[in-house]
Amino acid sequence: MAKLRTAVIGATGVVGQQFLVALSGHPWFALEGLVASSRSAGKPYREAVRDGSGALRWHVAEPPPPEFLDLPVVALDDFNPEQYDLIFSAVESDLAKEIEPRFGAIRPVVTTASAFRTFDDTPLIIPGVNNDHVQLVRRQQAVRGWKGFVVPQPNCTTTGLAITLKPLLDRFGIRLVLMTSLQALSGAGRSPGVIGLDILDNVIPYIPNEEEKVQRETQKILGVLTAEGIEPARFAVSCTCTRVNVLDGHTESVFVSLDRPATLDEVKAAFREYDAGFGSLRLPTAPPEYLVVHDDPFRPQPRLDRDTNGGMTTVVGRLRADPALDNGVKYVLVSHNTKMGAARGAVLTAEFLSCQGLLG
Amino acid sequence: MAKLRTAVIGATGVVGQQFLVALSGHPWFALEGLVASSRSAGKPYREAVRDGSGALRWHVAEPPPPEFLDLPVVALDDFNPEQYDLIFSAVESDLAKEIEPRFGAIRPVVTTASAFRTFDDTPLIIPGVNNDHVQLVRRQQAVRGWKGFVVPQPNCTTTGLAITLKPLLDRFGIRLVLMTSLQALSGAGRSPGVIGLDILDNVIPYIPNEEEKVQRETQKILGVLTAEGIEPARFAVSCTCTRVNVLDGHTESVFVSLDRPATLDEVKAAFREYDAGFGSLRLPTAPPEYLVVHDDPFRPQPRLDRDTNGGMTTVVGRLRADPALDNGVKYVLVSHNTKMGAARGAVLTAEFLSCQGLLG
Amino acid sequence: MAKLRTAVIGATGVVGQQFLVALSGHPWFALEGLVASSRSAGKPYREAVRDGSGALRWHVAEPPPPEFLDLPVVALDDFNPEQYDLIFSAVESDLAKEIEPRFGAIRPVVTTASAFRTFDDTPLIIPGVNNDHVQLVRRQQAVRGWKGFVVPQPNCTTTGLAITLKPLLDRFGIRLVLMTSLQALSGAGRSPGVIGLDILDNVIPYIPNEEEKVQRETQKILGVLTAEGIEPARFAVSCTCTRVNVLDGHTESVFVSLDRPATLDEVKAAFREYDAGFGSLRLPTAPPEYLVVHDDPFRPQPRLDRDTNGGMTTVVGRLRADPALDNGVKYVLVSHNTKMGAARGAVLTAEFLSCQGLLG
Amino acid sequence: MAKLRTAVIGATGVVGQQFLVALSGHPWFALEGLVASSRSAGKPYREAVRDGSGALRWHVAEPPPPEFLDLPVVALDDFNPEQYDLIFSAVESDLAKEIEPRFGAIRPVVTTASAFRTFDDTPLIIPGVNNDHVQLVRRQQAVRGWKGFVVPQPNCTTTGLAITLKPLLDRFGIRLVLMTSLQALSGAGRSPGVIGLDILDNVIPYIPNEEEKVQRETQKILGVLTAEGIEPARFAVSCTCTRVNVLDGHTESVFVSLDRPATLDEVKAAFREYDAGFGSLRLPTAPPEYLVVHDDPFRPQPRLDRDTNGGMTTVVGRLRADPALDNGVKYVLVSHNTKMGAARGAVLTAEFLSCQGLLG
Repeated sequence: MAKLRTAVIGATGVVGQQFLVALSGHPWFALEGLVASSRSAGKPYREAVRDGSGALRWHVAEPPPPEFLDLPVVALDDFNPEQYDLIFSAVESDLAKEIEPRFGAIRPVVTTASAFRTFDDTPLIIPGVNNDHVQLVRRQQAVRGWKGFVVPQPNCTTTGLAITLKPLLDRFGIRLVLMTSLQALSGAGRSPGVIGLDILDNVIPYIPNEEEKVQRETQKILGVLTAEGIEPARFAVSCTCTRVNVLDGHTESVFVSLDRPATLDEVKAAFREYDAGFGSLRLPTAPPEYLVVHDDPFRPQPRLDRDTNGGMTTVVGRLRADPALDNGVKYVLVSHNTKMGAARGAVLTAEFLSCQGLLG
Repeated sequence: MAKLRTAVIGATGVVGQQFLVALSGHPWFALEGLVASSRSAGKPYREAVRDGSGALRWHVAEPPPPEFLDLPVVALDDFNPEQYDLIFSAVESDLAKEIEPRFGAIRPVVTTASAFRTFDDTPLIIPGVNNDHVQLVRRQQAVRGWKGFVVPQPNCTTTGLAITLKPLLDRFGIRLVLMTSLQALSGAGRSPGVIGLDILDNVIPYIPNEEEKVQRETQKILGVLTAEGIEPARFAVSCTCTRVNVLDGHTESVFVSLDRPATLDEVKAAFREYDAGFGSLRLPTAPPEYLVVHDDPFRPQPRLDRDTNGGMTTVVGRLRADPALDNGVKYVLVSHNTKMGAARGAVLTAEFLSCQGLLG
Repeated sequence: MAKLRTAVIGATGVVGQQFLVALSGHPWFALEGLVASSRSAGKPYREAVRDGSGALRWHVAEPPPPEFLDLPVVALDDFNPEQYDLIFSAVESDLAKEIEPRFGAIRPVVTTASAFRTFDDTPLIIPGVNNDHVQLVRRQQAVRGWKGFVVPQPNCTTTGLAITLKPLLDRFGIRLVLMTSLQALSGAGRSPGVIGLDILDNVIPYIPNEEEKVQRETQKILGVLTAEGIEPARFAVSCTCTRVNVLDGHTESVFVSLDRPATLDEVKAAFREYDAGFGSLRLPTAPPEYLVVHDDPFRPQPRLDRDTNGGMTTVVGRLRADPALDNGVKYVLVSHNTKMGAARGAVLTAEFLSCQGLLG
Repeated sequence: MAKLRTAVIGATGVVGQQFLVALSGHPWFALEGLVASSRSAGKPYREAVRDGSGALRWHVAEPPPPEFLDLPVVALDDFNPEQYDLIFSAVESDLAKEIEPRFGAIRPVVTTASAFRTFDDTPLIIPGVNNDHVQLVRRQQAVRGWKGFVVPQPNCTTTGLAITLKPLLDRFGIRLVLMTSLQALSGAGRSPGVIGLDILDNVIPYIPNEEEKVQRETQKILGVLTAEGIEPARFAVSCTCTRVNVLDGHTESVFVSLDRPATLDEVKAAFREYDAGFGSLRLPTAPPEYLVVHDDPFRPQPRLDRDTNGGMTTVVGRLRADPALDNGVKYVLVSHNTKMGAARGAVLTAEFLSCQGLLG
């Protein structure tokens, strides 16, 4: 079967670089279009990620994939979506608002930008969590008269939370979720992101707009698809989001009140037996385990656990009963914010959409 | 009025050093007895805090107070409590179990060790929070037939939490408290404490026994003194305690369900108008403000706020309504774990006991 | 004696904030003019250092001095230097090039900007190191026909190095200096300075232009004033400047080849007996010791030693003979880059200039 | 060809764990003996690296190699060296002094301990740097009447320095080397190593005995093998070794005075064209490049460069002429202290010894 011709918009930025790594050697998607601002246009990619002095400006731990280095960078203005089967968008929200509807009208767009997340006709898909929401994509196409679509990734802090809540919701029901996050620096990007003077020997207790996103997106992801769209999950979600001096990997301290009583063994079993519902799909980027649960109380730690299964597995630990809440449990999770929480997660989503016959 | 003759047991350790700093220039307490293991006995203090090579081993930010440097260190075995009016104990829990009852039988002992915290006849006093619990000291003396007593400081993570809960409890009642702490390295001490390899670029999600202490001690501090002793506060307290790469200052993310509805302005007023009940006591170590509330959402930060009023003020920020809980509010606090949460807090307690006529 | 009317240009920036702290309660200089961009003009200073949301944007460890908070900020365009006796400039180099000659023509300007450092008629004065260079100020006035002058502070990495080299040069002569710096984040400022993602778990081995500055300025500071100007010191200076994850305090590893043999005791005596040549000047900002020498091999450490005497003392340790060099010695120094190395150092310079009768 | 039966002594410690990772899947060496203290004896390895609570105590970034998890741990007292062809020793220096001669008398021992480094009949072999020193191994066997031998790895700070000096020595000769190291935390181990309270926001300017080791070992490694043993290189080496807050990867700032003039291009060519002299040996652990030279002045950085070629390549940058020295050059290097500088380097050495016919 021929690979899908794939483009990344915003290919020279940090998230764009993550997409290149995530797509290197991909068995289904052939990355052929690297789109960036006109400043880089026409240059081979290897030059487009160098600064004026010729130094490489590469911000991902893995090295730049050699197979993409000679591809010429296409200016956004010259980009023709019709030449591709699949478009990944890694641009900032303002630009996303402008270009994603334009490209989505013609071709499938999977994006890490937040612009579309709140639209009624747009699902927030985490494959393995809300597979059925994919049907809303067809509705988006019908309503808007589009040949393509736009599917956004959730906020990176939401992803790990929603993944751990899903098995609890399925087996026991959820009444209430209270979460405090200890988020990594990479979530803030590099323009300028968090400066060293502010975070050394410190915690920053506020990340603008983050709490609202986590609360709203968690309810949408775990909501029910109805004829009218997605009805958000009815349980309350409340959170406080902080920044700590960690490179990658968001840590979240979660308190949950369940609808029904559950022993710790039952909760642990719910996590460990969780079935992503992939059947025989064999998605190339899906991790062998969706959730790992540690019994060692000193785990999970972001540095030790963020890269589990290439950063695609959510790692849970410190599972305890919480007598302070009705049917309460509490735990700590670590989720890789720039892998499962960003570009690699978007690639997984595209793989899932492909299996659903949505990529043409 | 003559100053009280004061001794510090464990004077060469980290907490002991903090006591020296807290007692330097104290208007009521004259530190005259520096007690340590027999290894240091007889040496002047300035030598006892040097290692074999002659290098100073001083672990407090402030320099060693010059007035104590020539005091000879007394071996624990040679220590005669009768020569002092007041004893501060800065020893480890195991040793505390053995010596504190012995010395407490004769003289007032205020201690940072945990050994006595759970006893029925022992209050956990935070001056300004549970002033009336001081009456239990007389009961301890009566029951045990002691001339002195033992009053322990609460766990350092508990202190900031209890201080912020007190005005909420008084004005609105409390139903439920859920807290996630981001604790500083200094709370783990130096033997060996947290090693750099474990905490750099990391969070450690577990501090042994800490959560139980915070839950139990918070309820005791905010409990009601009855004829039978202290009846613990009835609201539930649940917490997850983590370690982050910060030197000093515990950060705590708190979710509270109140008994009665309260607007944010009312809650803020409760914090800002909080009266420590000191009247005209003029305790030398008491901060001018017990609580500071920031409107800037980026505060409190441990590096910026821990030293407010010499580390004796608890700093609150990010105050928000929490619709997920009944009458819910949430906030973040920073409290200095080695100042108000340890030696300086113990000195404040002793000052308060002195005003109550308990120091002879 | 009336205090000198003093202005700070760039008063709302980080270095400007440092000047306010350095001038708070100053016995000779009355800070009356706070000059900033037109955006802040007319506002009281307390508002000019708040952002759109009303939050304080204050980047110095000490709190904002209350006595300056109600002063109105003057727009640079409206600033009349004739209303002041002394001007401190804390602006960026590009702006300094334009405005400092204009103001220096009329009034004394002491600046932390680098624009004037290389001019032949401009001394780089470190009071206590090259006091006689002050004569060049009169020459600058004569040559340029100015009533005022411009005197720049050296680069912050140069200051500590020059201070430690001076006693060696005086007593033993210097042939060669090789230095590797481990510089703090605050030296890079906040626009954006060093971002957390780049420096966590890392060292950055390059600081643009820094090595050239240190080499050139050290030779100028330790040079000889002649009829033609300053003849740079003849010894070679070579350095490698790196950035480490430290908030404040530059650490420098120095290897020196002396002209004449010296025992370690003689070198140590040279440091400890160093006479800043202030006689009875009683400069308010001068530290009681210019240099502190530690015998403890684990010192100096930036966190423990940077604040010695308010950050005005250079702290030396690890003094060893270096048999690899002719008459070799090696040592490590720590110098506070934003205190002695910036605003407080500039205030000290102004105090010295005042004693020389140069401030009118 | 049959693989060599291999044992690791000290297999449960940090360095032992690194050996397991380095030997996983090794094509020549079959790790069959895991030797540790009697406390672990008889347990399968998977249990021996768990603590009392059952939690894994694994301190290497790579996961424990599954193929070794079921091997039973042998008590040191029960270890029979005759059952193995090759022994790696990862024990502390004191124990090494006692057991390494005992085992070396019977079998080849390659060790990371320092006990043997200074002996006249013992080479410090870095394959690719001083291949000819291997002949001294036969002399050691002859002199001591041993069937085996002991070959120690150099100190981890020495390794990177010696590797970069070798091509300079060969092409231009060396007169003088001055080095300042910025060493990673992992070099200090975990017992307790460097505690977080000491290194956060700090630099520690002293590492006991380190400077002497680097100076002495560099001269030995780059010395000349004569009939009497190794004549140390005659150039002087002087260094100052510091600790910075970095997990892995030692950074070294090096100043070199060459015997003969060399342009920067010639020096760069010497690094880039360096031939390790392996011919067709195809050592499994040897990196494809011994040295990588960056032109980007912001490299090398320990976090970005330490893992180049699995941590086996020394990365150089900031190459500059140094006019302060005769024929001076200066540069910065990064070398992975726990890979090339420890267990993986020892495996490389054993591979080289095997090719020389020394492993029986």
